[in-house]
Amino acid sequence: MSLLGFLRTAAAGTLLISIIPPQASAQRPDIATTYRAAADSLIRAATGDSAAYHRVATLVDRFGHRLSGSASLEAAIDWILREMKADGLQNVRGEPVQVTHWERGAESAELVKPRRYRLHLLGLGGSVGTPRGGITAPVLVVASFEELEQRKKEARGRIVLFDAPFTDYGETRRYRSDGPSAAARAGAVACLIRSVASFSIQSPHTGRTIYDSTVARIPAAALSVEDAMMLHRMQDRGDPVVVTMRMGARQLPDARSRNVVAELVGREKPDEVVVLGGHIDSWDVGQGAMDDAGGSVAAWEAVRLMHRLGLRPRRTVRVVLWTNEENGLDGGNAYRDAHAAELDRHVLAMESDGGAFLPRGYLFVGSDSATAIVRQVAALLQPINAAGVQRVEESPEADIGPLVERGVPGVGLDVDGTRYFWYHHSDGDTLDKLDPAEVARCVAVMAVMAYVVADLPEALPR
Amino acid sequence: MSLLGFLRTAAAGTLLISIIPPQASAQRPDIATTYRAAADSLIRAATGDSAAYHRVATLVDRFGHRLSGSASLEAAIDWILREMKADGLQNVRGEPVQVTHWERGAESAELVKPRRYRLHLLGLGGSVGTPRGGITAPVLVVASFEELEQRKKEARGRIVLFDAPFTDYGETRRYRSDGPSAAARAGAVACLIRSVASFSIQSPHTGRTIYDSTVARIPAAALSVEDAMMLHRMQDRGDPVVVTMRMGARQLPDARSRNVVAELVGREKPDEVVVLGGHIDSWDVGQGAMDDAGGSVAAWEAVRLMHRLGLRPRRTVRVVLWTNEENGLDGGNAYRDAHAAELDRHVLAMESDGGAFLPRGYLFVGSDSATAIVRQVAALLQPINAAGVQRVEESPEADIGPLVERGVPGVGLDVDGTRYFWYHHSDGDTLDKLDPAEVARCVAVMAVMAYVVADLPEALPR
Repeated sequence: MSLLGFLRTAAAGTLLISIIPPQASAQRPDIATTYRAAADSLIRAATGDSAAYHRVATLVDRFGHRLSGSASLEAAIDWILREMKADGLQNVRGEPVQVTHWERGAESAELVKPRRYRLHLLGLGGSVGTPRGGITAPVLVVASFEELEQRKKEARGRIVLFDAPFTDYGETRRYRSDGPSAAARAGAVACLIRSVASFSIQSPHTGRTIYDSTVARIPAAALSVEDAMMLHRMQDRGDPVVVTMRMGARQLPDARSRNVVAELVGREKPDEVVVLGGHIDSWDVGQGAMDDAGGSVAAWEAVRLMHRLGLRPRRTVRVVLWTNEENGLDGGNAYRDAHAAELDRHVLAMESDGGAFLPRGYLFVGSDSATAIVRQVAALLQPINAAGVQRVEESPEADIGPLVERGVPGVGLDVDGTRYFWYHHSDGDTLDKLDPAEVARCVAVMAVMAYVVADLPEALPR
Repeated sequence: MSLLGFLRTAAAGTLLISIIPPQASAQRPDIATTYRAAADSLIRAATGDSAAYHRVATLVDRFGHRLSGSASLEAAIDWILREMKADGLQNVRGEPVQVTHWERGAESAELVKPRRYRLHLLGLGGSVGTPRGGITAPVLVVASFEELEQRKKEARGRIVLFDAPFTDYGETRRYRSDGPSAAARAGAVACLIRSVASFSIQSPHTGRTIYDSTVARIPAAALSVEDAMMLHRMQDRGDPVVVTMRMGARQLPDARSRNVVAELVGREKPDEVVVLGGHIDSWDVGQGAMDDAGGSVAAWEAVRLMHRLGLRPRRTVRVVLWTNEENGLDGGNAYRDAHAAELDRHVLAMESDGGAFLPRGYLFVGSDSATAIVRQVAALLQPINAAGVQRVEESPEADIGPLVERGVPGVGLDVDGTRYFWYHHSDGDTLDKLDPAEVARCVAVMAVMAYVVADLPEALPR
């Protein structure tokens, strides 16, 4: 998840152009009339059982988390390809993607002073490891980049801990992405951050860090919110804080992975394509259930239900489960490159990566005329209160970003994200955090939009 | 925490005799008139700053968790005794208590089939360890004692996992206390339980298990709610579930600990005593901040504020921080025994052990006539909306139970326990879960009740 999270939690909300409830836009009777029956049958099929939830459960229980380069990711992909074929989908295939391969290795951190205590640590994705004996150093706790700037002289030779309280994801995650190099620039020997999380029960949260190539790469990890706050209090109390970090993280040669692709070939315009999906990779903690097995299965189920109901639209509907969203976006970029020749015939790209929670509607990036049509399609979701359309300026999700940049209209799901950052990139991202009825509604929301846009007499305008 | 938790979460609520808002009871003008000024000054002093919260912070950050028999418990007690003397309290002393000494040792669990995965395990207090090589066995998951009874034949030679969803503490904790012996009776080689928790982010919850002396003692541990549910789903799916458990737990010879005692000696009737306190020990996870550093410090601060304000009541006010509440109640029993000769002059015993959260008033066990007076005292807390009195049939807290059994009227705090079982006995019981303003209100609630009851012309009737 990238921009959607930013939008959902942005204080300023500058990217949000308009929130117009669907009833405020003029309804073209043709879409409402033509597609009411198909939409209702998709909604009924999606919400009539817990099939999608059970498929998420099987996926995450059987294969666990799925980091790029891991055997579990490739085994999960193999299983999905088999299942998609059994579902009767067409052109089921894995499209090759070269992905980054970072491994966490063994890691731990111990508070040495003022007392011995095992800290709750989780290395940041992409971090270098420590020397074998670890790094033991006094800690400088700062609350912000600004405070580090002010206390730069104290940082040399220390472990810098950014104890920045969560405000919104877009702002707070800067400590995860940019904190390590900022600390290195001040002469720090390693960097810790307070986990980017809006609530915590001692679970640290990982995520990708991005080294600035002009400074030394120092080991970087997140502490649980609780531990970061405790170290800060210790420093405020005047106690010396000393920590030992040990991280076996390492970057391996790129690995081979695949984007999972399956289709319902269009009955009239098979070369025109509506793409919908999620990302099949995850961080190497928890089960990657919320992020993003739920979104992946919702898209897959949407296409399976069309097939089961005999709803074959004019254009091709293509489900894509992108690989390597979390630490590279190699899957999203590879899809764009492999399909460069047909991108002008991609009429819509849709992704669910904000958690398969209760959907309120859609996030949409596209032209005014496309927006007007998307609003009419969204109105078909009124029976499950998911007819909202929020127009946004940038791609609402990461994997479809490369398509949106090439002019493809983009859709994300607008869901209840209240607890998203409680579990995000942590051991707490497990199946039980999803609700069967909410996952089912996400299936309905994806199915109706994909089906109708794929079936409209005219392609969605750009 | 024992009975209070049961009361707070009891579905049936059979122990609850009456909830009568204070305004419904007749006000004797003498208490309201005589003690309004003293009560207001105590409330103002308690809520005017965050002193109590900062004292909790120093205690839990400096010493960490405090299990009976641990060096950290005794170091914390030494520090508190010094601080209490510096506060100017009288008769500050540690009263010797022989306590049980159980050590967790190293422990881990791994799912071996259907896939390899490190489970989130926390041994139950009092459990025996496993053989050095651990125990590897197939798992039988049951949802209840009743299901175990039905499937008893399948339990032999297996690890039995009770995956019982949380209903209320009184009911669900039976799996923790009685589950291991029930499993042993069915021939199981070890026992796992789903953590007794009403919400979880992958943190397992410990607590005391109680072996039945007529069956074998088998190793017993809690899994996180997430992991227990996953193993249950795997079994439901027909996958074989095999787990390896390793636990280094052992029972050591009893250790020496102390109840912390300090007083304000009564100005007229020094031999009559109001006792108030919390328990200073904790489980060996998290910081024991909620359970029960917060309650301990609230009682201590209540007495310190009386002293600072020059409010010396007729009777003696005695703060007691009991040791070993969590795994033996040795402190509560030792206090009763050491003070047996003066128990008939204990006019009230009060404890806060439900978390120093937002107080709504009191839980009270005592006679009708005593209840009427306690209601009038509670009415003095109306300025902070904490004037409620819930009458209960048994001691509202564990450490004062031995006193209540001897006829001493007992008071507990009635607080907002919404999140209590999110953190209880887990690594998530840390300072940040408390709110400075709520802790301050708990101080006020304890101070006013203790002061007024200690100062009334006549002793609280039994």
